Formats: sequence, structure tokens, C-alpha cells
Amino acid sequence: MFNMDRLYDAVEARGHVCVGLDTAPEYLPPKERRAASGDAAAVLLFNKAIVDATADAAACYKLQIACYEEMGLEGLRAYSETLKFIRSCGALAIADIKRGDIADTAERYARAHFAGEFEADFVTLSPYMGADSIEPWLSYVPEKGKGAFVLVRTSNRGMNDFENLTIDQGDTGHRGHRLYDVVGERLAGLASKYRGDSGYLAFGAVVGVNGSGPAARKEAARIRKNLGDLFFLVPGYGAQGGAAEDAAALLARGNGAVVNASRSVLKAWMGAAGGGAEDAGNGFAAEAARRAVVEMRDAIRAAAMAGGPAAGGGG
Amino acid sequence: MFNMDRLYDAVEARGHVCVGLDTAPEYLPPKERRAASGDAAAVLLFNKAIVDATADAAACYKLQIACYEEMGLEGLRAYSETLKFIRSCGALAIADIKRGDIADTAERYARAHFAGEFEADFVTLSPYMGADSIEPWLSYVPEKGKGAFVLVRTSNRGMNDFENLTIDQGDTGHRGHRLYDVVGERLAGLASKYRGDSGYLAFGAVVGVNGSGPAARKEAARIRKNLGDLFFLVPGYGAQGGAAEDAAALLARGNGAVVNASRSVLKAWMGAAGGGAEDAGNGFAAEAARRAVVEMRDAIRAAAMAGGPAAGGGG
Repeated sequence: MFNMDRLYDAVEARGHVCVGLDTAPEYLPPKERRAASGDAAAVLLFNKAIVDATADAAACYKLQIACYEEMGLEGLRAYSETLKFIRSCGALAIADIKRGDIADTAERYARAHFAGEFEADFVTLSPYMGADSIEPWLSYVPEKGKGAFVLVRTSNRGMNDFENLTIDQGDTGHRGHRLYDVVGERLAGLASKYRGDSGYLAFGAVVGVNGSGPAARKEAARIRKNLGDLFFLVPGYGAQGGAAEDAAALLARGNGAVVNASRSVLKAWMGAAGGGAEDAGNGFAAEAARRAVVEMRDAIRAAAMAGGPAAGGGG
Repeated sequence: MFNMDRLYDAVEARGHVCVGLDTAPEYLPPKERRAASGDAAAVLLFNKAIVDATADAAACYKLQIACYEEMGLEGLRAYSETLKFIRSCGALAIADIKRGDIADTAERYARAHFAGEFEADFVTLSPYMGADSIEPWLSYVPEKGKGAFVLVRTSNRGMNDFENLTIDQGDTGHRGHRLYDVVGERLAGLASKYRGDSGYLAFGAVVGVNGSGPAARKEAARIRKNLGDLFFLVPGYGAQGGAAEDAAALLARGNGAVVNASRSVLKAWMGAAGGGAEDAGNGFAAEAARRAVVEMRDAIRAAAMAGGPAAGGGG
């Protein structure tokens, strides 16, 4: 069974929230940080508490490896242990590593992140260097069911610099398309031989839309329609400014995407009653995280229902 | 002093070779691999021997982090120790990590790779997500002199998929340009406030050209002319098929680029007389590596001289 099908089922069962474990030591209750043998050890304990408290309300978890690399080797040990913990719970882990390199190197990266100490269920990939930087990862689909989300349309300001440029290749049918359209279509072609029971391909796309309003909603609908075979990983919720309605515009029949939230979940305890108290610990933080996840899950479900059959009603 | 100026001076003094320490355990003399406590420990000892033997003939070293990630946490320890060793010798180290992420994350990555256990002199970056994925790294130029090479035009087959697409943005002056031209020009603009004594900006570009012959040479000359402010990191020499003449076409007045070679240096011992013997060790491999580096250095210098003032004669 492809991991993308497992993710589809997780969305059906538990909603659309991907908890982003972009855990920085400064997000932890000070008491826990002081009590641990070091920041990396404290982050690992915090992560485990968050996963324990949210596993029945979240679709999956995403680890931004930068947060762990920043803490050096001990940080990467916490990264590895967090991945193992998530997967030992039967939950799905996305390694947000945005790798993209020549085929020989991609093979090495794939061995690093689809097996061994850093094994994840999904990775994120960057497409700049082309198809041969993605193909080696696809070879992990048939036997291990692994998945990936390739950067297509991101939600940061800089997406206008290159992703959003218009391509002029009349003879290849690309005239008038944006770079991110070309990337998305190429990705759908590359992954087309691995279609799961859910109808989605084994590899999907990172797609975010910045801003709310009719223009953003129209762009989201266009992308969702163009890339109907691709499951989406949607960044930018919460701290990055996205709202439930914006995320719902990227769904198809109530499924087809997970929506990542990190700081709004990890730091929820700071805004909770009692969160400033000296005795706030991981249990307190985990309960606040759980409430944030449930609230977000329900908001996206409601927005999907309100959006009618195309977005959410048909499931 | 910017590291890019140090690199320029290194090229003046020792030629254009960047030794790619993309060290896989299977490249090591079997005897050394058996004797070490593990593959990662063996790789570290091998790397040190290579650096010791080539430091007076190479401009710099580049570590492909995928090779180390593949070996897990112990591999990353070898990565960290290799970086420390190179820098303790006064040599320059490029971390080939091809990172590219939103600004918040880029700040974390920069702290990880421009300070602490993984500190390098340069990193490689991927531009897909735009300027705000590169800007946070630039903040390490003024105080620490750090450098980066951003992917512009790579030498793999897949470069035709996206990098080489033609952009149609008449109103922004991009009409008829390729994506990689737009990326290169944007990079030159971003880095323009950090110009070193060598005349090059603190951040440069990864530029390779696949194939030999007039068309490839013409493209190289065009890129070199368009991006005159950028120092180049040139991949694809040796095992990837590039030749000295192709590399020389990317030079300017005999400087302005380092040319990476990895397997042709690390595995040189396998083709050397006596390399098949059971008693071949790191010393033997290091001497073969040194000969390969010297040969490559001399070939590029000769090609640069043969290319006339534009390529090499003016220095």
C-alpha cells in the first residue's frame, strides 16, 4: 500500500491537519528546557508529548530538518528519534528536507531518508535541477510505498521571483504557463505509473496560496483542477497567515490535501490560560496543542463543507 | 575578508581544482575499511589523508552532504570532523547542501551551516523558492565573510526540464531569457552590495555546461559574460564528462571559477599501478589523488592559456 493512500485514509479518519514539528527550543516550556540534559533532549521529549496528544486528531507529522540541524549532531539525533517515535505509533512522518540534486546524489539521499536512521514515510523535494533529480526517489515506491511532495507553488513572497514566471515554449505546449504549472505537470507525468487505490499518485506536490480573496481562491481552484492526480501538502496555515477557507480551496471532494501548521500548534500553550505559570510543562503544552489541532481540523472541515461538492461536500 | 576573495587568491596560488570529498565507503582501499571501527570512521581517515596530500595543489574542498547522511548520525559526525579538519588546515570548505526554503527556515539553516558543528566557508543553495530563500544567508557576509554558490545552470540531463525553459515576461525585460539567466541575474542583484577586493561578489553561482563542441563553448562564453560579477563553482569534471577546455571557457582572465572533481580524484588509486594490491592504503590513495589533482590543475591552466586573454591569458 502506498503511503499516499495511507495519508488519504488518515484524512478521511482524522481530518486534514499535518502537525509541523519545527520544534525550536524556545517554543518549549522553560521548566522542561531546564530539566532536560540539553536542548535536543528537551525537544525530543516535547515532540513525543505533542505526538501522543494529537495522534487521534492529526493526519500526519512533518519535521523541518533545519530546526534539528541548527542543534548539530544532537539535534539530528532528536530528529531521528522523533521520526522513529512517530512511525512506531503507526503515524505518518514527512521529512521536510527539500532535497534536489543529480541522480547519483539523489540515490544517496534516498537511501538516507527512505531507509536507516533517518527513515521517513515521505520527503519533500525541490525540482530546480529537473526530472533526473526526482526519478531516483520514485524507485522506492513499488517495494516500500514511499511518497514525496515536490515543491510546485509555494506560499512565500519569493514565489513570484521564479515559480510564477511565465514560460514561452510554444512548441512544447507550455506557452502562457507559469513555471510552477510546468513543474506540476511534469511531476504528474513522472509519477503517473504509481497510482494508488485512492486515485492519487504516489508522489504529490507542495502547493500553497498566499493571501485570501477571490484572486487567490481562483488560483487555488485552477491548480487543484490542473493537478487532479496529485495529493497536496499545503503550507502556510496559522502563523504564516493562511485560513481554513484558503486551505479548503485546495481540497477535492473533501480530501486530497493535508494542511501544515507548526507554530500555531507548538506554541499554543503560550496563549493558554496558565501558560505563563512557572509550572507549565509538556503535558500542559500538549493539551494546548491538541486543542489547537482539533480547532483547526474542525475549521477546515467546516470550510470544506461550506465550499460545496467540489471542495468538500462530495465525500 | 570575504571567503570569495580567499578563494580567488587560492586559485591564483594553487589553480582551479576543487576536490569533491563525496566520499563513499566503496571508494576506500579495502584494507583501510576493514581496519577502521566503522565506515564513517574509515571515511574520515581517508578524507584527512586526501586533504593532507592535496592541500598545496587544490583551491578548496567540497563535501556532498548526501554521502554522509547516507551513513546516518555517524556519517554526519565524519562530515563535521572533515569540515573542521579542512578549516584547521587553513583551507576552504564548501558544504554542498543545496538548501532552499522560506526565510525563517533559511535562517535556521544558515545558523546550522555557517556556525557550530557544521560550519563551512561556503554553502550551495537552490533558488526555486526565490530571493527570500537566499537573503538570510547573505546576512553572514559582513561579519563572517561567508559565501554561497547558488544553482544557476547545472550540467545534468534534467537541466533542460526547467532551468533551460524560456521565460516570457516582456514587461520585466525577461523576454527570450532562460530561467537560469533570470536566476543568475537576480542573484547578481541580491549580492551586489557585497563586492570583494577581487572584484567578485561574495555569493557566486553553480554553472556547468554539458557536452563539448562549439555550441557548449558558446553557451559557456555567454554565461561568463552575462554574469561577470559572479565567481563560478563548476561541476561535472572527470567522471561526469567535462574536460579542461570546457571548464576553461567559464574562466575570466584565468580566474573566476573553481572546477570540482570528485570520483576522478578519490578513486584515482584504483587505476594506479599497485592499486589492486592488498596492501594499498590511504597513503597510496592520497598520492594517487595528488597526482590526479596536479594533472587536472595543469590541464585547466594550459586550456586557460590556450583560450587567450578572455579565458586565461590576462591574469
